Amino acid sequence: MTKIKGRVTLPSQNNFYEETKDLMNRWGADALRDSDGTKLDDQIKDLDAKIYTTYFVARGHNEFAYQHLDEMQQLYLMSDYTLATETVCTIDFMNGFLTEQIKPDYHHDPKVWWDVYDRTTETRVDPVDWNVNEETHQVEVHNAIPFHEYTVNFLSYMIWDPTQMYNHITNDWGDKPKEIPFDARQPHSHKYMVETLIDFMENNPKTDVVRFTTFYYHFTLFFNDKRKEKFVDWFGYGSSVSPAALEAFEAEKGYRLTSEDFITNGYYNSTFKEPTDAYRDYIDFQQKFVAMRAKELVDIVHQYGKEAVMFLGDNWIGTEPYGKYFESIGLDGVVGSVGGGTTLRLISDIPHVKYTEGRFLPYFFPDTFFEGNDQAILDEAVDNWVSARRALLRSPLNRIGYGGYPSLAYKFPTFVDYISETTEQFREILTHVEDKKPYSKCTVAILNSFGKLRTWQSYMVAHALHYKQIYSYLGILESLSGLDVDVEFISFDEIKDGIPSHIDVIINAGDAGTSFSGGSQWSNPELVSTIRQWVYEGHGFIGVGEPSALEKGGHFFQLNDILGVDKELGYTLSTDKYFNQPLSSHFITEDLTENFNHGEQINNTYARFEDTEIIAMDQENVTIAARDYGQGRGVYLMGLPYNFSNTRILLRSIYYSMKKEEELTRFFSSNIYCEVNVYPESHKIAVVNNTNQVQKTIIYDGHGNGIEIELSGSEILWGNVHEKDIEFSA
Amino acid sequence: MTKIKGRVTLPSQNNFYEETKDLMNRWGADALRDSDGTKLDDQIKDLDAKIYTTYFVARGHNEFAYQHLDEMQQLYLMSDYTLATETVCTIDFMNGFLTEQIKPDYHHDPKVWWDVYDRTTETRVDPVDWNVNEETHQVEVHNAIPFHEYTVNFLSYMIWDPTQMYNHITNDWGDKPKEIPFDARQPHSHKYMVETLIDFMENNPKTDVVRFTTFYYHFTLFFNDKRKEKFVDWFGYGSSVSPAALEAFEAEKGYRLTSEDFITNGYYNSTFKEPTDAYRDYIDFQQKFVAMRAKELVDIVHQYGKEAVMFLGDNWIGTEPYGKYFESIGLDGVVGSVGGGTTLRLISDIPHVKYTEGRFLPYFFPDTFFEGNDQAILDEAVDNWVSARRALLRSPLNRIGYGGYPSLAYKFPTFVDYISETTEQFREILTHVEDKKPYSKCTVAILNSFGKLRTWQSYMVAHALHYKQIYSYLGILESLSGLDVDVEFISFDEIKDGIPSHIDVIINAGDAGTSFSGGSQWSNPELVSTIRQWVYEGHGFIGVGEPSALEKGGHFFQLNDILGVDKELGYTLSTDKYFNQPLSSHFITEDLTENFNHGEQINNTYARFEDTEIIAMDQENVTIAARDYGQGRGVYLMGLPYNFSNTRILLRSIYYSMKKEEELTRFFSSNIYCEVNVYPESHKIAVVNNTNQVQKTIIYDGHGNGIEIELSGSEILWGNVHEKDIEFSA
Repeated sequence: MTKIKGRVTLPSQNNFYEETKDLMNRWGADALRDSDGTKLDDQIKDLDAKIYTTYFVARGHNEFAYQHLDEMQQLYLMSDYTLATETVCTIDFMNGFLTEQIKPDYHHDPKVWWDVYDRTTETRVDPVDWNVNEETHQVEVHNAIPFHEYTVNFLSYMIWDPTQMYNHITNDWGDKPKEIPFDARQPHSHKYMVETLIDFMENNPKTDVVRFTTFYYHFTLFFNDKRKEKFVDWFGYGSSVSPAALEAFEAEKGYRLTSEDFITNGYYNSTFKEPTDAYRDYIDFQQKFVAMRAKELVDIVHQYGKEAVMFLGDNWIGTEPYGKYFESIGLDGVVGSVGGGTTLRLISDIPHVKYTEGRFLPYFFPDTFFEGNDQAILDEAVDNWVSARRALLRSPLNRIGYGGYPSLAYKFPTFVDYISETTEQFREILTHVEDKKPYSKCTVAILNSFGKLRTWQSYMVAHALHYKQIYSYLGILESLSGLDVDVEFISFDEIKDGIPSHIDVIINAGDAGTSFSGGSQWSNPELVSTIRQWVYEGHGFIGVGEPSALEKGGHFFQLNDILGVDKELGYTLSTDKYFNQPLSSHFITEDLTENFNHGEQINNTYARFEDTEIIAMDQENVTIAARDYGQGRGVYLMGLPYNFSNTRILLRSIYYSMKKEEELTRFFSSNIYCEVNVYPESHKIAVVNNTNQVQKTIIYDGHGNGIEIELSGSEILWGNVHEKDIEFSA
Repeated sequence: MTKIKGRVTLPSQNNFYEETKDLMNRWGADALRDSDGTKLDDQIKDLDAKIYTTYFVARGHNEFAYQHLDEMQQLYLMSDYTLATETVCTIDFMNGFLTEQIKPDYHHDPKVWWDVYDRTTETRVDPVDWNVNEETHQVEVHNAIPFHEYTVNFLSYMIWDPTQMYNHITNDWGDKPKEIPFDARQPHSHKYMVETLIDFMENNPKTDVVRFTTFYYHFTLFFNDKRKEKFVDWFGYGSSVSPAALEAFEAEKGYRLTSEDFITNGYYNSTFKEPTDAYRDYIDFQQKFVAMRAKELVDIVHQYGKEAVMFLGDNWIGTEPYGKYFESIGLDGVVGSVGGGTTLRLISDIPHVKYTEGRFLPYFFPDTFFEGNDQAILDEAVDNWVSARRALLRSPLNRIGYGGYPSLAYKFPTFVDYISETTEQFREILTHVEDKKPYSKCTVAILNSFGKLRTWQSYMVAHALHYKQIYSYLGILESLSGLDVDVEFISFDEIKDGIPSHIDVIINAGDAGTSFSGGSQWSNPELVSTIRQWVYEGHGFIGVGEPSALEKGGHFFQLNDILGVDKELGYTLSTDKYFNQPLSSHFITEDLTENFNHGEQINNTYARFEDTEIIAMDQENVTIAARDYGQGRGVYLMGLPYNFSNTRILLRSIYYSMKKEEELTRFFSSNIYCEVNVYPESHKIAVVNNTNQVQKTIIYDGHGNGIEIELSGSEILWGNVHEKDIEFSA
């Protein structure tokens, strides 16, 4: 087998020619890219490499935007809650918003497009009872009920692109023009976008790959009056609205949306809210539109014989890569930022593209690459690589790359050497695993309201950022991203009438009432009974946090009978709970050497049944439990922050829930810091050390026979597999 | 002022004459009582003391009960949740119940009185679709939906009185007869109860006080098949049902109750469940009936010139002393067990009786009074006395007493000496405070679903027992029981149209959805706006735990605007929360020397407003906060387990919420372990040291001028008060 070359994209910059050549050589790069704030000079563009050029579709052309201010992008916003202390209530609806970004839309009649709500009664105020003062940006509510709270849902123009705003403010760009985003749904903007791209293609023949960053609508992101982030939803369709869009929606779907479909009962309609039918329709409607418009641009790129790739982020709304219209865009590739295993899989699993590319960390920016920070730079690179590698071994990216100013990185030779190693290792991995399905022990499905559409995107608020309320669930995905199981994401709708036969284990996880736990879905008896029967007949169900949570019929966890655990809300305090002694040992925690780290506390979980296996407790709460349920089993975990112990606990939970404990030790590493992947088609086995320390482990073959091996820090050891036998030449 | 004598009830027993005289002398006892398992001989009954005789109305007469088995007391019970795996579902409905206590009622037609529920759909199964097998105690459901869960609500006979059952099993009474409870609503039982009491009065002329233990219906208490407690609700009306009662209810109230009024949606209808209108009607109906029947017995006692007192517990259901029918019973007194300040106030605040008596701890039983346990006995006595004394100084009992075998206690001279001191101290306190209203700085109202009816009874599952889910709230009551404020309990219904003008501060506390927090009440805009206006106009609102919790209109805490705090359910994760820096100091925590002990964690509380005063945080959650709201304020506390620090935090929160911080140091102790009470009518001030250690403190007079004093361990120091001036002779 010959080694493959390239597969690495290097950022470059002006006046960096010799160094670029050197880095290309050392990292085996076959592509060069510009970045935010860097441009490539012609000499560099003439090197033997593909040239990626970052391309913005809907911003960066203020000369056009100023001529068509009625085509600016729009956003539904909600004012502060305002207390009426008398029968007239004045709402300063712009209070707290950044006027550099937000401008109320007085062009379209507020009486038609805005809504005032009495949030104390959850009722809409009749428009005759309020009026707008355009000078003071106030709404005055008449006939208000004293001591009720009122809000205004108002339509606004977004006069500053959120990503440019972020960069502008963060980097203190002073009087650099604020880029106004314009709307692909509007006639002039649409025409301008097409013509501008044609113009670009004509004038940039050295560009091989147009890197769209991205298309039309930014995820919802607005700032407060102190120039800090006020709201962010990486999945939010809030910035895609406009009267034109809503009218087109009505024409297409046959009914009218209102502001309250975007600001539901006082909440911005985020990915954590259970999606209403109307909101699903809107998502579908915009995805279809965006795909149609994006295809036009991609087709132009193809007409010039070039490739079109999309950055997964920024103005990505409507392009969701696991949605039903994505394929029709016809992209050649997708590039995304890799924060770890989950975000790697989010990119690498994307269907319908020729290649996927992951931009690894650290980003070559001065906040990281400063003098004396050598060790931290290296640590970040190693952590990023090792955590992502787990996922790469399950579902490889086709390319990797870096971003930022290479002149900064070039000053850190240890780092440059390390990337030489990892790029080489990446290519070696690809020779064994690319286009080859790794051996999977079972299929695990994450069950939530969005299912496949948000594959590897559950529980995220903003891309790869930490939040107190999500890390206990994100750990599930991060663990799964490198485990030797197949992973799917399924929605409640898909399984009501039957669970696909290839699924072995279902995981339901999240806080009560969220789209991830499922909320109102659990009031559906068909859903509940379908899962019960399926588990009863010999499958596994793993609940994390507040799974199947909905107060109904005497329970909070509707599948408490499967999980063995419910959460006490106070209504059954009078019932004695005797089952509170954890077992001294259990299959699931067999490799656990310290206390189980359950992350955030779900208070008052308790074992409901004498035959509930209580596996771990903390603060008098059950943190791990299991229960036999017919031929299958349920497993409850309070939370699963990502770490090696918890990854093992999840793997064991999967086996335990399927009642296949004896099969755990087939192609298996006894040491939790090492993992095994098998590639039947290439007859290869990879044993990977996920730490920087030397690890000894027993590796089990397909018969369950073990051999002890030792791996150096972060080593990946390749062996040969024939059926169930394994052999290492080392 | 002459010292009062007596006021102490001593338990005695056979063959304990000389020792009884000695104890009477040393403790100043003026009454003697028997106890469970003890009887007094005639010689003792002839001592110069009132004789109390324990009297059981509805049990202890099996010879009668066996002749009228159709008059046994009854109970609605719910079977285990039973999974249907096919279309026939067999429910072993007696599974898990103690057959020594419970016997299914096949006498009344199950098709009429029982109900089978599909708990997965929350629907009642048509009676044609099930049948009962009386041999096997099974219900067979036909046309069951596979993988739904079914339960049976079945009517049963309670063939063993719960308290006697508890004593019998606990003390291993072997073949001692199991006392069968009979029902005052039944004709023979009613007649028998009257006749038996007359007979008793005729034959026990030396009894001065009939101590009813208690009347007719036991609080709900049943055991499991392992002879351990299965369910206990000290407030439960579950054991008062019968076809006769339900038919009488229908005749009186005009509609029919069903089993599902007692087992609502799979929950036994406990005091933590929001009471439905029907359940309130039933409570009213039974209270009225019990009061009417109890009056008959009390009248008989009075006809014999004797006193009638009631034990607050056991068969007390229907006699609730703060209910509207209690006065009509005509009791002379109430005796109850004192576990601390809260339970003392529960007894001492009871209206419409001539006297209240508290039975103090420890109980003279062998589990405490065994050789070598001297220090533990003394500690329990001291703790009990010191914690109860705080409440006594606010609302005195008229009498105190002890229970059990005095022969056991007599062997512990240190204990006997200590009780000599406390009984003397008790009498001294009475000379200053009895029938005199102590000076109160304000009126605090605890707001919940039961209001006045369950005065000092909020958050309790079983009398004075600890539960993980309640101690964080019970601390509020325990703190209040000794603070120099007036305390009331009000219901949501009472305040919808306006809050009584004498109330200064409202406290709403409890877990979301419970009767104590309020659950669905908070969907009522009138309730919300009434409280808002009231606070806005200059009152205080203190929320503890999950106050005003109901997901509606964009919030979870409906009064988050007053409290400054809401709880994140996941729906507003996308909104940035910048307010997370606790203040370095604050009026409320000024006396706090260590971390605030908030008890159980309410996860994801956060400050909603820039002007929310964040006073304490833990685990990234806000544990104490406050906010200005018009002329008043809101204060949020995560929880308030009882301790001295938290008592002070509550007191300061009360002042802060009223915006009367400057008035805190009027009649006030700087040291949190000491408290001050003032009695304007007797011109006395009491400074009490609530610890066993010497304490130095600054005592502030009514002008706010302080003098430093020192108190010995648990000392109570009396001084004189003239208007705002104080003077200590010590």
